[in-house]
Amino acid sequence: MTQKVARYLAETSPATPCLVMDVDRVEQNFQRLQAALPNARIYYAVKANPAAPILERLTGLGSFFDAASWQEVQMCIAAGAAAEHVSYGNTIKKERDIAAAYAAGVRMFAFDSEPELRKIARAAPGSRVYCRIFVENEGAEWPLSKKFGCEADMAKRLMVLAGELGLDAYGISFHVGSQQTSSAPYRSAIAKVAMVFTDLAAAGVKLRMVNLGGGYPVRYKSEVPEIEEIGAAVMGAFAQHFGNDLPEIVIEPGRFLVADAGTVCTEVVLVSRKGEADPVRWVYLDIGRFGGLAETEGEAIRYTLRTPHDGTADGPVTIAGPTCDSVDTLYEKSNYRLPMALTDGDRIEILSTGAYVTTYASQKFNGFTPLEEHYI
Amino acid sequence: MTQKVARYLAETSPATPCLVMDVDRVEQNFQRLQAALPNARIYYAVKANPAAPILERLTGLGSFFDAASWQEVQMCIAAGAAAEHVSYGNTIKKERDIAAAYAAGVRMFAFDSEPELRKIARAAPGSRVYCRIFVENEGAEWPLSKKFGCEADMAKRLMVLAGELGLDAYGISFHVGSQQTSSAPYRSAIAKVAMVFTDLAAAGVKLRMVNLGGGYPVRYKSEVPEIEEIGAAVMGAFAQHFGNDLPEIVIEPGRFLVADAGTVCTEVVLVSRKGEADPVRWVYLDIGRFGGLAETEGEAIRYTLRTPHDGTADGPVTIAGPTCDSVDTLYEKSNYRLPMALTDGDRIEILSTGAYVTTYASQKFNGFTPLEEHYI
Repeated sequence: MTQKVARYLAETSPATPCLVMDVDRVEQNFQRLQAALPNARIYYAVKANPAAPILERLTGLGSFFDAASWQEVQMCIAAGAAAEHVSYGNTIKKERDIAAAYAAGVRMFAFDSEPELRKIARAAPGSRVYCRIFVENEGAEWPLSKKFGCEADMAKRLMVLAGELGLDAYGISFHVGSQQTSSAPYRSAIAKVAMVFTDLAAAGVKLRMVNLGGGYPVRYKSEVPEIEEIGAAVMGAFAQHFGNDLPEIVIEPGRFLVADAGTVCTEVVLVSRKGEADPVRWVYLDIGRFGGLAETEGEAIRYTLRTPHDGTADGPVTIAGPTCDSVDTLYEKSNYRLPMALTDGDRIEILSTGAYVTTYASQKFNGFTPLEEHYI
Repeated sequence: MTQKVARYLAETSPATPCLVMDVDRVEQNFQRLQAALPNARIYYAVKANPAAPILERLTGLGSFFDAASWQEVQMCIAAGAAAEHVSYGNTIKKERDIAAAYAAGVRMFAFDSEPELRKIARAAPGSRVYCRIFVENEGAEWPLSKKFGCEADMAKRLMVLAGELGLDAYGISFHVGSQQTSSAPYRSAIAKVAMVFTDLAAAGVKLRMVNLGGGYPVRYKSEVPEIEEIGAAVMGAFAQHFGNDLPEIVIEPGRFLVADAGTVCTEVVLVSRKGEADPVRWVYLDIGRFGGLAETEGEAIRYTLRTPHDGTADGPVTIAGPTCDSVDTLYEKSNYRLPMALTDGDRIEILSTGAYVTTYASQKFNGFTPLEEHYI
């Protein structure tokens, strides 16, 4: 938690649940990432947090943007971004949304299948396109399935087709999984992309761009590698596989830019036991999986909690949200411990919650309204 | 899908994704459930779908209401329900929300722990209270954890305490799990509750109410027992364990009243393959887990889909939502098949989606706005 957030919480004691974001920290993260990967162009993954103060700050810093939908394209433009600095990066798009983005000036689109490529050719003629391919994502705390991407052989055929359809066959993208804590998947993915580049050059198609996606890790409860270490590994892999003929490099950080800029403040609703001699207390908060903490599904993302009683005697707890849904349980198997003194009405701070919280929040599950957002 | 919904979809072709609800069907379900359990008082579980047209119709039918939050209490009152017909059934409540509900006239509260009971005693003096106990929920398609309820021994101590705190020790509740397809858990639960009644009578506390919760199953892809069969098993168990001294019986149906009254209409965004020879197509819809179909988590609830090409040749598919999140995949392991002719732009109807869809919908994940709702 940044000092600015701590001061804001202490001085204003906002109603819970809420998210308080330090926009200056977003700027610091942007600068640090740019320094770690100086050859890369940053496209902020808007889906991580689309709040206008963040988009406006990043626009001022010269950031480009990765939009998941036509609505996100509009948010970027409303925040002052030039449409040509926005990539429509979802491989699943309605044709009329592609057309709307094209009409607004967007000229860069992702795909991973022939039907999608043909939609782009019809609705956004002449645009730059890049194809997402499968890569390994072992080591990711929030791994990916086969939902996105295609086999490299298919990608090669489709990039040839892209040129035939009058599109600009721009490059290849991949994603090593979110909260990726190993640099090995980047190295093997870059090697794979280099082979695609070589094969396509032999077929007369000269690609120019590699899009590394996002996934740069943020420290939650466990240590993660520093971004400088990942950046060095990535640039080493590019030098190894591309030599002096480096492509344009695109990265799409979301979590890395915004996660540690945000703190969720929540109130303890109840602390109870299920039997007279039960050693484990249940701690119920006024935010849960359906209030925005969706990434606790499967206890994948393990946030750090701060309480007013930290440093006093603690004991094992199960932590759950406030709704009448048993799935709305945050941590049951991750060995969380909280102070024995914790009681209802206490306020808890959940650290590094600036990413993927406000947007996931359900609109009204159990009648609860989404958390308030404070950008400072 | 009711004829009224089918006609509305055909005539108005509403923008997707959307939910169309036949409120008359809700009324039919209410009457059928009341006939199957004539001794039970129905408290509609508002969380299943809190739309005003539903609450208003049910108010007119004499339904009572089970509210999960102070906000849901207010929705019931706004729909014309008498406050004394509303039970505040969440065992996790802020004390100020209990006080607000009490001030509005609510006099029935759930609890499953001593701290919660003491909150109710302070904030809602003299109210009727019921304690939720653990029971088995084997056979439920959406089972429950230990998030709610307590051991029976603790419940007995707390019901004695309730009287000492000036509350009306009203009864015991349990929940056999949502979409429960066996009547056996009801029978064993009623036997367990009867023992609690007996033990407490010996301690001088005369309980008067048994709350069976909800969980009454709805037909999705698989057959489920008829409600009349479950009703007969439940009433048989009451006769066996309570004899002529039947308690008041409360039931809290949610899904049963609203699920099959609703149809989600969605548009196919993309049909693709991941490799040239891949036998499985990926079908991407404009609604997914974060657009409201949250109960497809773990492929727990398997909805029936209708397409314009039904009856023609089909093949295996994986079905996913439109967001850039690989977790937003509906069915990958449940052997869904859809017509080979299916293509982007086709409209698909997802049947029996009137429960737990609109409220779960994320407010803006990936920039997508929640589905439209039509009550006819």
